[in-house]
Amino acid sequence: MLHTIYLIAIAAEAMSGALAAGRRNLDVFGVAVIAFVTALGGGTIRDLMLGHFPIGWTQHPEYVYLVVGCGLATVAVARFMHRLRLVFLVLDAMGLVAFSLIGCEVALSMGYATAIVVMAGMVTGISGGILRDVLCNRVPLVFRKEIYASVSLVVCGLYLALRQWGIDHDLVVLAAFAAGFALRLLAIWRGWGLPTFSYQQRWD
Amino acid sequence: MLHTIYLIAIAAEAMSGALAAGRRNLDVFGVAVIAFVTALGGGTIRDLMLGHFPIGWTQHPEYVYLVVGCGLATVAVARFMHRLRLVFLVLDAMGLVAFSLIGCEVALSMGYATAIVVMAGMVTGISGGILRDVLCNRVPLVFRKEIYASVSLVVCGLYLALRQWGIDHDLVVLAAFAAGFALRLLAIWRGWGLPTFSYQQRWD
Amino acid sequence: MLHTIYLIAIAAEAMSGALAAGRRNLDVFGVAVIAFVTALGGGTIRDLMLGHFPIGWTQHPEYVYLVVGCGLATVAVARFMHRLRLVFLVLDAMGLVAFSLIGCEVALSMGYATAIVVMAGMVTGISGGILRDVLCNRVPLVFRKEIYASVSLVVCGLYLALRQWGIDHDLVVLAAFAAGFALRLLAIWRGWGLPTFSYQQRWD
Repeated sequence: MLHTIYLIAIAAEAMSGALAAGRRNLDVFGVAVIAFVTALGGGTIRDLMLGHFPIGWTQHPEYVYLVVGCGLATVAVARFMHRLRLVFLVLDAMGLVAFSLIGCEVALSMGYATAIVVMAGMVTGISGGILRDVLCNRVPLVFRKEIYASVSLVVCGLYLALRQWGIDHDLVVLAAFAAGFALRLLAIWRGWGLPTFSYQQRWD
Repeated sequence: MLHTIYLIAIAAEAMSGALAAGRRNLDVFGVAVIAFVTALGGGTIRDLMLGHFPIGWTQHPEYVYLVVGCGLATVAVARFMHRLRLVFLVLDAMGLVAFSLIGCEVALSMGYATAIVVMAGMVTGISGGILRDVLCNRVPLVFRKEIYASVSLVVCGLYLALRQWGIDHDLVVLAAFAAGFALRLLAIWRGWGLPTFSYQQRWD
Repeated sequence: MLHTIYLIAIAAEAMSGALAAGRRNLDVFGVAVIAFVTALGGGTIRDLMLGHFPIGWTQHPEYVYLVVGCGLATVAVARFMHRLRLVFLVLDAMGLVAFSLIGCEVALSMGYATAIVVMAGMVTGISGGILRDVLCNRVPLVFRKEIYASVSLVVCGLYLALRQWGIDHDLVVLAAFAAGFALRLLAIWRGWGLPTFSYQQRWD
């Protein structure tokens, strides 16, 4: 199940990445790169951080075809997508949670400590969007919008806690998924954000 | 032959990187870093993506001296370089093609699937310029200028196709090189670009 | 001793990273990420460059707690920090030198060539700040401010030279540390900078 959600999620991430590229008037190659990086960049950074080689998608060329294809298809269907914005928010929330859980599992399988497992989950969930924003020359959105990374943190924490209590693995995944998904949708609906920090004096 | 072209190409890339640093009024250390990253960053990203350690240039300190030296020399000769712009476009085209072929060969030697081999070629060819632009705080040029990454794609595809048909390796390299080089020069001459994608509605 | 200085330095780097995040009005999650990246990003890039896995901090979750904790604490104490600016400049200078020496030692222990050892030292010393600036969407400060990377270069060079002359290791570290620290403070005090390179013609 997590795998199916993963495929849907990388397709959705690729499409939203393509729209970000469109805001910068990139050419179709730029669109393909941004789509790829948004969808598969998070897993790449996680694998580099964990020293997990070969990197996931290099063993699954079909993922590359999927995300590049979806990115390019976005150019054709972009003008209809605004009506589907809600659908994409839901798919993105699913992706955030699925990516986080997958990231935790990879780090766990390599025997990393708890804090690093949580970081691997969060890195998988959010760093694709960070790379997208860096390439599009803007301050990463995830550092400013409604709680997003925090959802990833909750999902990873809950997953590890339930797991430690000896609960059945599938149930743990389901519970962490449901909780994270609900939390993210609530955050969007209610506009929950983290407090921001503003410091305007010259420092360096 | 590919090796000689490679050395000339990294020198030329380093010099054009130094000019990009000059547009941001960086100090000579910044110039050296941007020169290094432009020339050797593509191979670095490729090696990280493929899990190919040690990373190429770490075994060839002479490459580091070459690109840093060329980058710093650019500060002295910059005012004469505009007259040589055409020469540099030609060297850059040679570099793009040589980098792409070398990237393909590294990935092939590690047994990666076709799509990943092509990506390794393209990453080697273009990501030095992407890193340069990110460090200079601008949207990567390669996402917007005349066909550039597409040349890399054609070179890699042709190389793999000819190779599969059992043609002699040197001949394959020569043919792919010539085709890519010609295509890139044609693209510059005729101003061929890819269609761009523009999307201005608020999305995220 | 180097280890104690290292811990103080990553804490100080995390706090100055947090202030940079504050200038962009990031939320507390963004603050934590920038603090982490500023403090531990340099060692991460070095480990990736050297193929040195597992990456340092993944084996020391306590470093992650320390830098994230210091980053978040900065939000509370930021308004008192300006008075401590001098203290932070001193801590940052200590960090720059300690990071450089640690970077050299890691690369030496892996048998890399001299030029690569020096680069590993410099990368450890400065790339945390480069990542911070890229994520905050500005041209890296280290490419423009008073001599900073040059201090790292001097420290690494001196360390390697003294080491080769067969001097006792602790003495070598102490001498390189003292020289680098003094040079950095002198550079701040006298405003020493490198010459900058300005090139305003259209090139690419």
